[in-house]
Amino acid sequence: MNERLTAVYEVPGPADEAARLARAIAFEETVEVPLDFPLKDEIRDQVVGRPAGPVPSEEGRFRVEVDFPAALAGGGLGTLLNLVFGNASIWPGVRLTDLRLPDSLLARLKGPNFGVEGLRRLLGVRDRPLLATALKPMGSTDAELAAAAAAFFRGGGDLAKDDQNLVDASFAHFRARVGRIAEAAARESARAGRPCLYLPHLSGPQEELEARLEFVLGLGLRGVLVCPAIVGLDQVRLLAERRAAVFMAHPAFSGAFYADRRHGLEISLYLGTLARLIGADVTVFPNAGGRFAFTAEECRAIAGRARAPLGSLAPAWPAPGGGMSLASAPAMARDFGADAVWLVGGRLLMSEGGPEGGARAFRAAMARAFPA
Amino acid sequence: MNERLTAVYEVPGPADEAARLARAIAFEETVEVPLDFPLKDEIRDQVVGRPAGPVPSEEGRFRVEVDFPAALAGGGLGTLLNLVFGNASIWPGVRLTDLRLPDSLLARLKGPNFGVEGLRRLLGVRDRPLLATALKPMGSTDAELAAAAAAFFRGGGDLAKDDQNLVDASFAHFRARVGRIAEAAARESARAGRPCLYLPHLSGPQEELEARLEFVLGLGLRGVLVCPAIVGLDQVRLLAERRAAVFMAHPAFSGAFYADRRHGLEISLYLGTLARLIGADVTVFPNAGGRFAFTAEECRAIAGRARAPLGSLAPAWPAPGGGMSLASAPAMARDFGADAVWLVGGRLLMSEGGPEGGARAFRAAMARAFPA
Repeated sequence: MNERLTAVYEVPGPADEAARLARAIAFEETVEVPLDFPLKDEIRDQVVGRPAGPVPSEEGRFRVEVDFPAALAGGGLGTLLNLVFGNASIWPGVRLTDLRLPDSLLARLKGPNFGVEGLRRLLGVRDRPLLATALKPMGSTDAELAAAAAAFFRGGGDLAKDDQNLVDASFAHFRARVGRIAEAAARESARAGRPCLYLPHLSGPQEELEARLEFVLGLGLRGVLVCPAIVGLDQVRLLAERRAAVFMAHPAFSGAFYADRRHGLEISLYLGTLARLIGADVTVFPNAGGRFAFTAEECRAIAGRARAPLGSLAPAWPAPGGGMSLASAPAMARDFGADAVWLVGGRLLMSEGGPEGGARAFRAAMARAFPA
Repeated sequence: MNERLTAVYEVPGPADEAARLARAIAFEETVEVPLDFPLKDEIRDQVVGRPAGPVPSEEGRFRVEVDFPAALAGGGLGTLLNLVFGNASIWPGVRLTDLRLPDSLLARLKGPNFGVEGLRRLLGVRDRPLLATALKPMGSTDAELAAAAAAFFRGGGDLAKDDQNLVDASFAHFRARVGRIAEAAARESARAGRPCLYLPHLSGPQEELEARLEFVLGLGLRGVLVCPAIVGLDQVRLLAERRAAVFMAHPAFSGAFYADRRHGLEISLYLGTLARLIGADVTVFPNAGGRFAFTAEECRAIAGRARAPLGSLAPAWPAPGGGMSLASAPAMARDFGADAVWLVGGRLLMSEGGPEGGARAFRAAMARAFPA
């Protein structure tokens, strides 16, 4: 195994400090000993990372790269995260911006079960984005949520997911709530002659996740919403590998990894690349112009990495959401193209005519942007 | 269930912006609808969080509190994290600094299996800190690591953990390596007539974690090192709940949550309180003056929260490490007292007389600071 992987970081300057940081990362993430430690030659040559750079980046910062033996990430996704950003995560100002992984590592990951093409086939939707909503607010009765989902589907919605805030005090509550909404979705599917996709939020105690997923799939539903930062990145990878379900990833709790632009992980690396490595078919993110501070460029980068070539992994759907309105439809179309999920929550539910009228209005806006 | 829990945040000013953010968090983390959404009265009264503050904090920032129904975190630790810092994590400048949890929630968590008193009983050590080291560097043979552990124990070391960078390409490699070091630890225990604690790094694919833990305990070892940010916080909680083993938590990959002091989670909340909620008996953190940028005050805060009253959960051991040397022993003693683990890696291994001489020297420094 002489294959290598490369991690790219943005670090503070000046240049000699950036170079020092690159060397420090190369040491810290492998041998983690003082620089004057009497390392054996073969360890220094074969194990310690190899730093390169610095290259000037933006605003006085620098790009550096560290090249590691790929074998050091051979124990699975967790070992990869540990290798490229274990202790380095604790240094202020260090941002992991890119990963270049050899095909041998990528080939061990199954990636999205459905991805862009698979979900199009499942839903029978061509040449336009998918319309999604979030079932909310928390505190609604099961019947209210089911009715909202049904109305959304009647108006032409493709995919209704639980709001990620929806939680159930117990498995019994989860069964009752999800069962009720699943019935509504099945009824609308039969009425419309097309699959109406309902994705319940897979949450709760770790020991119940698999059983809850089984229950969901046993109802005839095709997938779930999941928060990888809460459930665990490698746990999502495992669930997605075991069951050929649709996984829609939500960014809850992950923001601290990238909300500050000068450390952590590049937003698109986390919400684009990593989401896909763990098997997300759809990756939700807050669109520019909504309640969060993402820029249009950052959002395009997420979509780019969700769909760019990555070994033999299927492309994933970017799902911009968070404060979308009808007025932003043309921008959505322009920024993300047809292979995107339009995730419209509150504004759609509040539309004239309720979720049905809202779905109809958004589908009409979509039709204007993507004429058949 | 009318119990409440309170989340405390530090947010940017000015005061009216801080107040707006508190209201936004209260909405975002519960109903997540636009502020003009026609919420039913009972949802507005019973579900939406209740903001309080702002109170001026440091450097133009403000402290705000949001009080939530405790039932919204009733689905386990994941639902708690989602509730208090799900979408709020994505807002730049928002830092979760404290959590006040009702006893009913705390009572559902088992917490540390051993904690301060339990580990003292296990090791038979009274009235002084524990001396720990990290087995490294990566790339060493199994025999070399085993020899280093044995020498450390002969010199008086209490606890040898795998370096968190140590990974094994497969379960078979893990078995061979851990088995070899466990033999050495058992031999030294028998020779010294006291338990020499070896904690292997529990890592690898998610689906193997339980089996690897079983293997470790089957060898007669008493616990493991684990990286909760990689393995998943609730996954560690689950493992610790199922097996009465010692869990030493390492901060790898968690730094992005707190390295920037103006968003994410308060360092001591993550490495002190959360570590304990998931069952860490020992919580490792980079000490001030080492290679990382923690201040002495931050380190004392971690130790404080690791050991402060928290429902009926046992206190955990703070384990300051990262670039420690003999010269820092008096400061360690002063800052952390007797109930701390001195984690000394590279400098101890590099000592005159190797790990044995290093352990002896640190035990002597400890004896000077804590005379019997």
